[in-house]
Amino acid sequence: MLLLHLSDVDEASWARAFAEKLAPYPVVRRGDDFDPADVRYIFVWKPGPDAFNGLTNLAAIFSLGAGVDALLRHPRLPDVPVVRFVDADLSQRMSDYVVAHVTMHHRQYSRFRADQKAHRWSQFYPPSAQQTNVGIMGMGVLGQDAVQRLRPLGFGLRSWSRTPRPIEGVTGFSGDAEFDTFLAKTDILVNLLPLTPQTAGILNAETFAKLRRGGLEGGPVIINAARGGHQKEADIVRALADGVLGAASLDVFEVEPLPKDSPLWDIENCYITPHVAAISSEASGVAYFSRILVDHEAGKPLVNVVDRGRGY
Amino acid sequence: MLLLHLSDVDEASWARAFAEKLAPYPVVRRGDDFDPADVRYIFVWKPGPDAFNGLTNLAAIFSLGAGVDALLRHPRLPDVPVVRFVDADLSQRMSDYVVAHVTMHHRQYSRFRADQKAHRWSQFYPPSAQQTNVGIMGMGVLGQDAVQRLRPLGFGLRSWSRTPRPIEGVTGFSGDAEFDTFLAKTDILVNLLPLTPQTAGILNAETFAKLRRGGLEGGPVIINAARGGHQKEADIVRALADGVLGAASLDVFEVEPLPKDSPLWDIENCYITPHVAAISSEASGVAYFSRILVDHEAGKPLVNVVDRGRGY
Repeated sequence: MLLLHLSDVDEASWARAFAEKLAPYPVVRRGDDFDPADVRYIFVWKPGPDAFNGLTNLAAIFSLGAGVDALLRHPRLPDVPVVRFVDADLSQRMSDYVVAHVTMHHRQYSRFRADQKAHRWSQFYPPSAQQTNVGIMGMGVLGQDAVQRLRPLGFGLRSWSRTPRPIEGVTGFSGDAEFDTFLAKTDILVNLLPLTPQTAGILNAETFAKLRRGGLEGGPVIINAARGGHQKEADIVRALADGVLGAASLDVFEVEPLPKDSPLWDIENCYITPHVAAISSEASGVAYFSRILVDHEAGKPLVNVVDRGRGY
Repeated sequence: MLLLHLSDVDEASWARAFAEKLAPYPVVRRGDDFDPADVRYIFVWKPGPDAFNGLTNLAAIFSLGAGVDALLRHPRLPDVPVVRFVDADLSQRMSDYVVAHVTMHHRQYSRFRADQKAHRWSQFYPPSAQQTNVGIMGMGVLGQDAVQRLRPLGFGLRSWSRTPRPIEGVTGFSGDAEFDTFLAKTDILVNLLPLTPQTAGILNAETFAKLRRGGLEGGPVIINAARGGHQKEADIVRALADGVLGAASLDVFEVEPLPKDSPLWDIENCYITPHVAAISSEASGVAYFSRILVDHEAGKPLVNVVDRGRGY
């Protein structure tokens, strides 16, 4: 039996789609009449504190969303495999966001918009992509997808990850020891790291001060499409005011929804989107987890299982 | 002898660079002491009415800039080959602009910026690039470069050109007969056509009304990085007001600089840049034309010669 426990999304719609795909395999929702001991799989998004109670025969937890940091902090998380959502559609959407914001900043969007408001015809030729370095933090599925899309655009690419991840056409750096060298020639810093105790708050004043200056007119840029916990928003506000950063694109925030009184809203060169960089579509989610469930019931091993030691 | 005749750019700097590259071949500027009959090559940008006077032994005209529409209208243009500037650096910069504006509109920049101004957290998930069709008009060097960069991003690609130009991964259309079919499934229309009597004013109300509706939230988008003569600005103003177009990115204008009182400046979803999409760098221009000059002096044929019948 598959139990759905999804908050903030249309659980009924997902349940119908799973039931159709998996029939006659039983699919239930919270509130339905079923025996918790029959549940083999639970599909969760923002599970409540009692989500796992009574699930004595659980084989696996399926997590909607690529990031599992919140799920791993659940106080009563059972000791069974957690399967992350890894799908091409989510990677595509994340890269859509990353490319749009990298190229927008590279082409000096803020500058030209200010000129337009002033009816000012002021010619300025942005450097070519070849002269601009994009540094990506995190070389998992999402980071690698972003690389594949940014490389044909001509940007100089640098990566930073926990362990070395050699990728053609990318200058790779790894670990604390190489972090500063990675930053030193980065004009646009893109964060796609998993949120772990080691990466929390990594987008801070100290990091910003180490980025390359003189590459991009106006100063270096940060783009955070991973987790709000990666960023220190007070530091971002100060860095944008002081010119340590030229601009920022933020899709995630320390507190979401971003509070009405956050100073970030009113900063001209801070580009806010409401955690919409990438969402998994119902169609691809149902297809992905149904295949994993069916394969597992047929005796095959689970795939994309979270390493709890690493935290992702 | 090479004569430079460049307006609105740093002619002295170009002259120094050519002299250094071509030495001992003579390089002169207007106002220098030389016999016009000795001039074999003239390198021009916005030539004045008397630019070609007395150049009785001219072998070729070198044109800075990829578009030669204005040059071909010069009333005293000698009947010698005109060589266009075709270089990787210019193509790269043009594609930088095209990709930045395509992706910005695809990711609904206008919508999220309006939400930000209102401190409004309103989640909306843009379609993935696969669900979005970019239609490129013009499949010359610039159009083909744009295709190479947009394809890895996942967009559906359509092209329209004077004659058929089959390109892998692109649905091609050509000629007047296929123009409407090309537009019918285009969400983002990118203009990279040469300006000729046939293409003048092609970005007009009739064209806009034929673009696909329902693909992009807010309506279809146009991006003009070619020539101001391609667009009817009164039609663009009306289409943006009526919602026939969702947004526009314009790098070129009917009159440049764009007059202070143009209504385009104040339209929120019209993104104006001051004809800076692509400029040829001095370094690549000097290298390109020096090689052509030296080869031609050595008896090799000229390359990238304009077809005056086609107009590009």
